[in-house]
Amino acid sequence: MAYGLLNGKRGIISGALDDKSIAWKVALKAKEEGAIFTLTNAPIAMRMGAINQLAEQCNAEIIPADATSVEDLENLFTKSQEVLGGKVDFVLHSIGMSPNVRKGKAYADLNYEWYKQSVDISAMSLHKMLQTAYKLDAISEWGSVVALTYMAAQRTFPFYNDMADAKALLESVARSFGYHYGKYRNVRVNTVSQSPTPTKAGSGIGGFDKFFEFAEKMAPLGNATADQCADYVVTLFSDFTRMVTMQNLFHDGGFSMTGISEEVMGLLAKE
Amino acid sequence: MAYGLLNGKRGIISGALDDKSIAWKVALKAKEEGAIFTLTNAPIAMRMGAINQLAEQCNAEIIPADATSVEDLENLFTKSQEVLGGKVDFVLHSIGMSPNVRKGKAYADLNYEWYKQSVDISAMSLHKMLQTAYKLDAISEWGSVVALTYMAAQRTFPFYNDMADAKALLESVARSFGYHYGKYRNVRVNTVSQSPTPTKAGSGIGGFDKFFEFAEKMAPLGNATADQCADYVVTLFSDFTRMVTMQNLFHDGGFSMTGISEEVMGLLAKE
Amino acid sequence: MAYGLLNGKRGIISGALDDKSIAWKVALKAKEEGAIFTLTNAPIAMRMGAINQLAEQCNAEIIPADATSVEDLENLFTKSQEVLGGKVDFVLHSIGMSPNVRKGKAYADLNYEWYKQSVDISAMSLHKMLQTAYKLDAISEWGSVVALTYMAAQRTFPFYNDMADAKALLESVARSFGYHYGKYRNVRVNTVSQSPTPTKAGSGIGGFDKFFEFAEKMAPLGNATADQCADYVVTLFSDFTRMVTMQNLFHDGGFSMTGISEEVMGLLAKE
Amino acid sequence: MAYGLLNGKRGIISGALDDKSIAWKVALKAKEEGAIFTLTNAPIAMRMGAINQLAEQCNAEIIPADATSVEDLENLFTKSQEVLGGKVDFVLHSIGMSPNVRKGKAYADLNYEWYKQSVDISAMSLHKMLQTAYKLDAISEWGSVVALTYMAAQRTFPFYNDMADAKALLESVARSFGYHYGKYRNVRVNTVSQSPTPTKAGSGIGGFDKFFEFAEKMAPLGNATADQCADYVVTLFSDFTRMVTMQNLFHDGGFSMTGISEEVMGLLAKE
Repeated sequence: MAYGLLNGKRGIISGALDDKSIAWKVALKAKEEGAIFTLTNAPIAMRMGAINQLAEQCNAEIIPADATSVEDLENLFTKSQEVLGGKVDFVLHSIGMSPNVRKGKAYADLNYEWYKQSVDISAMSLHKMLQTAYKLDAISEWGSVVALTYMAAQRTFPFYNDMADAKALLESVARSFGYHYGKYRNVRVNTVSQSPTPTKAGSGIGGFDKFFEFAEKMAPLGNATADQCADYVVTLFSDFTRMVTMQNLFHDGGFSMTGISEEVMGLLAKE
Repeated sequence: MAYGLLNGKRGIISGALDDKSIAWKVALKAKEEGAIFTLTNAPIAMRMGAINQLAEQCNAEIIPADATSVEDLENLFTKSQEVLGGKVDFVLHSIGMSPNVRKGKAYADLNYEWYKQSVDISAMSLHKMLQTAYKLDAISEWGSVVALTYMAAQRTFPFYNDMADAKALLESVARSFGYHYGKYRNVRVNTVSQSPTPTKAGSGIGGFDKFFEFAEKMAPLGNATADQCADYVVTLFSDFTRMVTMQNLFHDGGFSMTGISEEVMGLLAKE
Repeated sequence: MAYGLLNGKRGIISGALDDKSIAWKVALKAKEEGAIFTLTNAPIAMRMGAINQLAEQCNAEIIPADATSVEDLENLFTKSQEVLGGKVDFVLHSIGMSPNVRKGKAYADLNYEWYKQSVDISAMSLHKMLQTAYKLDAISEWGSVVALTYMAAQRTFPFYNDMADAKALLESVARSFGYHYGKYRNVRVNTVSQSPTPTKAGSGIGGFDKFFEFAEKMAPLGNATADQCADYVVTLFSDFTRMVTMQNLFHDGGFSMTGISEEVMGLLAKE
Repeated sequence: MAYGLLNGKRGIISGALDDKSIAWKVALKAKEEGAIFTLTNAPIAMRMGAINQLAEQCNAEIIPADATSVEDLENLFTKSQEVLGGKVDFVLHSIGMSPNVRKGKAYADLNYEWYKQSVDISAMSLHKMLQTAYKLDAISEWGSVVALTYMAAQRTFPFYNDMADAKALLESVARSFGYHYGKYRNVRVNTVSQSPTPTKAGSGIGGFDKFFEFAEKMAPLGNATADQCADYVVTLFSDFTRMVTMQNLFHDGGFSMTGISEEVMGLLAKE
């Protein structure tokens, strides 16, 4: 069912890789709710992805951009404004990658070049997006920026490795830039801290399945799906949430606020 | 502009006193977005309020209830279901009163009977509402309960007095019951932590004006209005936010995440 | 090994029931570190307790007090000053009791008279202690007040029941009164959020054993013992921590900051 | 007055630049409390500093190390163990530098090379220290690591610029590595979030004076001094706090938990 919540809104959606991606779901939902937008991803990610299919479905142009490159981001914001016919109302940051995770380096044995890459790609890229938009004045008054994050920024999940640190920096950027962009153009910046989600990125992580199951047993409503996350993100892009800014918002079926559940107690009892 | 976000939804809205009340705005907005609902308030509050006017505007029945009385709450939920033709999809808890604040007793000189009343009226009433609904099975699957709160539950605002403690307990009830009602019927329970708002309740507090101004200078987007709060609450009642539960959600223009603003620095410089 | 950390300090220690109590350990440690103090407990608790033995060991006078009675607390502070020969430098609040927990009433089926008792005994008693001391000016400059709490104030642990709400209010009182007593006499007020501890109070809770085991598997350092808690509390009474106030301090081997541990992952894998 | 709290303990203290430095005060206090330790700083910082004087006073050897260089850190830990005659019991990380702050680049106009340097020097250096120590097994069982941080990691203080993001990452490293080092050797890792302190680093920041004054008016106990911070850090190095880990501990006279103070209200009233 569609409500037209994003009627007339223009956006940029990054990070749609395949139909498991949260960004993919956000694109479909934003389309359904009346928005027009461009899609973007790293050139390298696009080669493997099915993003063309999504672009067709959404009638959206793809503008490749390496999110660590200011030049690419300038092009992204400039082109998007041309294509969409005006300033951008919303941006989704859904970008994360850790070479240490990919290559199985443990947290107490990090490769430091890779660590820097994790942080640059997964977190500083949000700063670069925002600074680029700020300098180009490319986001309209009362625009909304959402970045996807994970609770490893608050508590330790060993398998999440150096991405925890990257997410902590990401959330800090959202707060810090939220202040400045708020003052400048009433633009709000928030992060959504989503349940573990069996996306390509998620399920690549060792132990993901077990953890997914744990979170499912812990959260009173179970794990939130990518589709539900898209619903939530749409409210944050809509005009109903203009005064919510600099927040980290848990979308996780209550996991974050549950110390232990009866199901997990049950596991221990069985033992 | 209306979207039909709450089409087909039934609700209960407490705490509308006059057209400055957040609950009043929520009622108008919920109506606009397609909901039907009953209104409730304490019999004593209603005598002074203009709630009849609101009821007419919203085509809503008023069911008086003292929120500290389980009997009254049973009647509220039973009658509401009759009037609305089915289980309740959303509930707004907007109830708070401190005799110590009203009568000017300082936090280090509390009257303990009044302290208990503050907590009973402002916080335990949420538990009573939820327990009553739970026992009557009066809230439908995936229903949504929102209680209004204030950041004094996290940090000290001296003028807020014993309401700080009441709000801390209120937020705890939302978390604790959110767990149980989540398991039982996938009902979510959240609190919205709103900017200082010049309602009847708010402006009665000594020093409110000065503090309102401070918050306005601090928050990058300024203080959120009651109207904006209503918009936000509507998203929490809608199906777009089904997996958000047990959260305390700041709706405050960024105040909560701002340590100091340039405007406040300016104040000090002037001195 | 003793350091004389509390040499010359006078205190009041509440809540020592038997040699499993944290308060009991705090008393022994405070004695060891050079403090003199009075012991207090509810008359009813004392009958069952072995507090006389502790009093002898510590050369401490016992002053019975119902912590919900302002009169009893006035007597406690007045007598303690007489006995100890001056104002009080530190106070331990270790008081908690929930009739709902004791009598097996579930959180969605609370008896409200008992709920109020839980809050009055376990949380408002801290306010009463502080207000009484404040009015009598019974705590010396740079004094320190510590109340024991549990993380159920932040996240839901179903078995903890209405004590969660009581602890949330307790922590709020520590913050709120911390502000006022800080201004007044530079007295600091903090809460220590301790690992589950197999005290008489703790182990009475249904499911405690399983939860204790879960926490042990989760926390990288394992659960903190009552003895270790006493060590920590002593630092908070000492002059080394004068500027720490209004904080909730986790003493839990890292449990609070651990989202999942390898041990808990292992449990799921076995399943 | 000295208690011998660190008798027999060996440590490494980084970041002592001059007698205003918190690290300087920690060194003096640690010495006073019976510890032996090495001092370290970046070769470049040492040229300007008076660290030799401190070394003499503390009878401590200086081992220069660029904290971004794993090689230097290996040398630091290896040499320290030789000099001190055994594994290290405590480590102070007090390292931070932002070229963007120094050169007056605003947060919405960052130089990205410098941003990376801020993060590398101020935050990743803690990871490098810990990973180096971990691999060399250079910290003894129940050892303690403390890193100094600032509340800009939680809330925005515009003048703090990109150091906010660096501190957020630093605190994340403390949590993440706290987990791993806890499992490995029961070593605890915490951050201390200190009041604004007029050190060389602090006072270099534009607007520092005004902010210092604001914090002084806000905190019920006023701002914590560097000396008081040293006292607190000593407790965290001592055996009294063995079960405190992965925590961010505010040492700020209550600033962090104060939403507004009467003094700040007064400022607004004067206006």
